[in-house]
Amino acid sequence: MSDTILPASLRAPRSPIQFYFDFSSPYSYIASEWIEAVAARHGRTVQWHAVLLGVLFQTAELKPAVDYPLKRDYVLRDFERSAHFAGLPYRQPIVFPIATHQAARVFWYLNEQDPSKAVAWARAALRAYFTRGALLKDPEVLKALATDLGLDAQAVEAAWQDERWKLRLKQVNEAAVAAGVFGAPFFIVDGEPFWGNDRQVQIERWLNSGPFKRI
Amino acid sequence: MSDTILPASLRAPRSPIQFYFDFSSPYSYIASEWIEAVAARHGRTVQWHAVLLGVLFQTAELKPAVDYPLKRDYVLRDFERSAHFAGLPYRQPIVFPIATHQAARVFWYLNEQDPSKAVAWARAALRAYFTRGALLKDPEVLKALATDLGLDAQAVEAAWQDERWKLRLKQVNEAAVAAGVFGAPFFIVDGEPFWGNDRQVQIERWLNSGPFKRI
Repeated sequence: MSDTILPASLRAPRSPIQFYFDFSSPYSYIASEWIEAVAARHGRTVQWHAVLLGVLFQTAELKPAVDYPLKRDYVLRDFERSAHFAGLPYRQPIVFPIATHQAARVFWYLNEQDPSKAVAWARAALRAYFTRGALLKDPEVLKALATDLGLDAQAVEAAWQDERWKLRLKQVNEAAVAAGVFGAPFFIVDGEPFWGNDRQVQIERWLNSGPFKRI
Repeated sequence: MSDTILPASLRAPRSPIQFYFDFSSPYSYIASEWIEAVAARHGRTVQWHAVLLGVLFQTAELKPAVDYPLKRDYVLRDFERSAHFAGLPYRQPIVFPIATHQAARVFWYLNEQDPSKAVAWARAALRAYFTRGALLKDPEVLKALATDLGLDAQAVEAAWQDERWKLRLKQVNEAAVAAGVFGAPFFIVDGEPFWGNDRQVQIERWLNSGPFKRI
């Protein structure tokens, strides 16, 4: 059954792709650059969720890869290589990882106004951190980023200090854990979980033709 | 400079791909099924290294993914999905993970006679464990597997009990750690490390055209 010859009303409804990311996650940055295009090619939208990897790791009893001997050297190399493989610029931030709760609260504050504003914030912040080391935990950096995006920097600062967005981020993290999310980037497509930027090819095939055939 | 129009003597020498695997690693099983074909397409050979993931994990202070809450459910799902994605049969072994030092010692014993015999052993054992749950820690299972491959089952049993192959496996693990290997499957291509079955596409592009262009 091809959608192209069916009227919109007869097409199967397509749920949005759930995309979980952390502002300090290199692989989230890479995924943030392809997820919208991949979704669009398959008639999907994307629901972005700014989460705190630290909270997810705590729940899942995990640690960041850079905290492990041997693995650290490898992943630092792989961050950059994987970005270049995806055709993206990358510069490993000297201060890494960083606290991202302020950037994430701003995301949820903007999301309530207009999800596309929140996505623009996410993409700009991820690019700023991973291509020019803009410290997303620094209030001045966050305010400058807001101004660049045409946002009210004072309102943005007020948002990350507001109990309302602190609570919202807490709830979002709890919901992510409840959904089985333990890392970032993390994707849920029609209930199927995919973890990691390197699941892109599986996600594309899944969107194309559904569950892989059992052999 | 195209190799196809150059006499063999003028072609750049191509080092073998170093491939590290563990007999109890689902992603190693998947990789073991494509690594030879990928190498051959790029005029390379593969040097297989049976290692003990437990030893590597200990050095790198890591634990198996299935030991973590949340991650466990995901990886069990991902093992099977990734195998099907690669077009391979897969059945999650009920007893998992298992001790693989005996199978690994047999690998090194055979490797000394003829590396292709060792590779045949590795592929048969990985398939047996991950498609029909053949317990590779069980002496009877290992001997039956040896017989199926036309090997002398008594000699194979003697090999895994032999101090010589115990020591060899110990040295191989130490060498792997020294080379920065902290997981399996792990690949080293001309000095460049790649970790995980999901690095297949990066490995292929690397073999094709070398380091990815910096943006």
